[in-house]
Amino acid sequence: MVKKESIGIGLMGLGVIGGEVARVLAARAEVLGGQIGCPLVLRKVKVLEADLARPQAKEMGLELFTTDAEEFFSQDMDIVVEAIGGEQPAFDYLKRALSSGRHVVTSNKEVIAKHGVELFALAQQHGVGLHYEASVGGGIPLIAPFQQDLVANKISGIYAIINGTTNYILTLMAKEGADFPSALARAQKLGYAEADPRNDIEGIDAVYKLAILASLAFHCRVQPQDIHCEGISRMNNRDFRYAQELGFAIKLLAIAKQTDNQIEVRVHPVFIPEESLLAKVDGVYNAILVQGDLVGRVLFFGEGAGASATSSAVVSDVVSAAQDVIAGGGSRAKWVLEPGKSIRPMAELETRYYLRLNVADQPGVLAQVSKALGDHMISISSVIQKAVDSAAQTAEIVIMTHPAKEAEMQQALDELGKLASVKEIGNFIRVED
Amino acid sequence: MVKKESIGIGLMGLGVIGGEVARVLAARAEVLGGQIGCPLVLRKVKVLEADLARPQAKEMGLELFTTDAEEFFSQDMDIVVEAIGGEQPAFDYLKRALSSGRHVVTSNKEVIAKHGVELFALAQQHGVGLHYEASVGGGIPLIAPFQQDLVANKISGIYAIINGTTNYILTLMAKEGADFPSALARAQKLGYAEADPRNDIEGIDAVYKLAILASLAFHCRVQPQDIHCEGISRMNNRDFRYAQELGFAIKLLAIAKQTDNQIEVRVHPVFIPEESLLAKVDGVYNAILVQGDLVGRVLFFGEGAGASATSSAVVSDVVSAAQDVIAGGGSRAKWVLEPGKSIRPMAELETRYYLRLNVADQPGVLAQVSKALGDHMISISSVIQKAVDSAAQTAEIVIMTHPAKEAEMQQALDELGKLASVKEIGNFIRVED
Repeated sequence: MVKKESIGIGLMGLGVIGGEVARVLAARAEVLGGQIGCPLVLRKVKVLEADLARPQAKEMGLELFTTDAEEFFSQDMDIVVEAIGGEQPAFDYLKRALSSGRHVVTSNKEVIAKHGVELFALAQQHGVGLHYEASVGGGIPLIAPFQQDLVANKISGIYAIINGTTNYILTLMAKEGADFPSALARAQKLGYAEADPRNDIEGIDAVYKLAILASLAFHCRVQPQDIHCEGISRMNNRDFRYAQELGFAIKLLAIAKQTDNQIEVRVHPVFIPEESLLAKVDGVYNAILVQGDLVGRVLFFGEGAGASATSSAVVSDVVSAAQDVIAGGGSRAKWVLEPGKSIRPMAELETRYYLRLNVADQPGVLAQVSKALGDHMISISSVIQKAVDSAAQTAEIVIMTHPAKEAEMQQALDELGKLASVKEIGNFIRVED
Repeated sequence: MVKKESIGIGLMGLGVIGGEVARVLAARAEVLGGQIGCPLVLRKVKVLEADLARPQAKEMGLELFTTDAEEFFSQDMDIVVEAIGGEQPAFDYLKRALSSGRHVVTSNKEVIAKHGVELFALAQQHGVGLHYEASVGGGIPLIAPFQQDLVANKISGIYAIINGTTNYILTLMAKEGADFPSALARAQKLGYAEADPRNDIEGIDAVYKLAILASLAFHCRVQPQDIHCEGISRMNNRDFRYAQELGFAIKLLAIAKQTDNQIEVRVHPVFIPEESLLAKVDGVYNAILVQGDLVGRVLFFGEGAGASATSSAVVSDVVSAAQDVIAGGGSRAKWVLEPGKSIRPMAELETRYYLRLNVADQPGVLAQVSKALGDHMISISSVIQKAVDSAAQTAEIVIMTHPAKEAEMQQALDELGKLASVKEIGNFIRVED
């Protein structure tokens, strides 16, 4: 136990999250101090020049702020809270904070996903903790449960809706029949999607978060580039109608599975049974289903983003870090790495597929399509055929397959694309039962 | 930091949970030791004479066992795991363990709900920890999230399905139209309900769990006797049919709310909107919805009972306790008590009500009923009237009220019961929107 008069905090960034963290630390000072045993004191806030004009900065008192990293790091601080976001300069600042013996709290998913291993090594070397509960799922407890509550389990699977923007868009498409561009526009208008929405809609944000969760759950290093990633921009409202007809919902899932020492990690749209709990998670909400050998299925649900929810996680990490400071023994959160784990190539995936084809409305087409699939050992479980456009003499065929190999499916798709009778491969979506 | 060659564990009880905990501690020894930094060693198991005949006891080696509490407590143990259950002798053993400086892990909801305050004081006095994650919600992380992840929040509400037995029975009644006795019999046959099911079906088990959660969430002492409790035995399958017609599900909810410093705590059947997430929690599963000012709504879902799920929580607590032992600074889990909180009397509750009456099939009855309600300022939001038994000349009236005071409703029910035209008050169920 270390006797402390107070715990010194340095905050980097006064944006949406940093501003809310500063507010909560002040508003809850008494309760938080009671939990820790001594007060938390905000010593310095590192900001950009432009932030000094913010009303909050003026209210807090400008002497609390600096734009100079040297000045910031020279303060007497036990804990550095990073709320800048993005890879740089956040990564450099985090290294500097850890190297100078400060405990670190961050909500930065990109840095943790890309550089977590290096940062953890630095933290261990300097006897301090690296806390990142806010990096995944906003205020939903996820990191702590994996580090603590589920520690006795062998985790076999994670199935997660961890990007609120895409879930909002998919919900609009499913419930209101919106097409993708108009659903995206609405999400942007409401502030759920950014002006440049690629990070969300292409699945990159979900990839960062899955890399963090899978690394933690499976005790290994999963990097963003290990994760197969497809976004939602190719979704069409026709797919939602067929999904409904077939008893499925369409969600962008982040999936991580472990079988023996092989790890499967992927982010892409999937068909999931409409009666499953994840299918019922609508709008900007997140939900993370974890399968453990002892605990069975547990699901965590809540707001996955937003200043309030994220600051809930950041401040709880600050309290944990402060308790570590007082305990004087470094961090108790370990990132255990087990040897012998490998990433399973996407080509080896075996799953069912939904396939929507635009074909010539003439005899024998279905036979050609099913032959192309059959040549790759893909058997059909059900078919829906509807005339779409009698003027163009095209029809739409929707196929659900039995479980098939991804590599075979990709080859079959290539061959289907070359058939004269197949006008267009409308979409193909994997099924997760 | 305390240098330890190993952490000594004493286990009390080798029943369903104790047996599984012993199995997991052995099977996961390596991973758990890695998390802690030194091995966990099971030093002694306190059992009853009859347990010595269990195959597991023989496999583990009989020298590990004792039936003598004196011998048990004389061992070199850092952590005592209590898996006996029930109030006594468990309570005495827990006091003895804490008083002798051992960290304690327990799954005993009854002892924590009734005697938590005393046990926490003992733990603090002796510089050790009291861990009870397994006492509520099986393996679902709940205690740790309240103690840690949600610590920055003001919690305003908890809405919980925390008894799997009753949820299973209600699910059967809702989905299959089963009546209460046959649904209970089926739950008993499957081992989901005990031969004497009162603890579950009368809501007592849920009361213990809610007392624990509410105390933790609201930083105060909520005792079982503070909680208004009604079980599910008066539920009739007619109520489920009407609920469906009206767009509701019926669940046994444990509800805790905090407004200013007033705390409302109750366990009883409720109508909840069928599109709410809790309405979709079926079978033996548990789900706990928490409303915090920062985090918004978070929901935790999973298996709320069973040896595996419970042992997942017990073993994670053992790891936390072991980390506390090594940190050498007592427990970091604090039970903060804030002054000035009071329990709101049930009579002051204001909510909507569902009311099912069996009335004489004659003119003017509805007028009499609505007058009796109106006399108590209870206004009707909708009415369904159906002829049930033309031979007996009775009809069934189902009423949904606007929000009304509980005290007024109870008086109105009294008066309705005295009306000659009201043959029977079929049921009344509160609504939670």
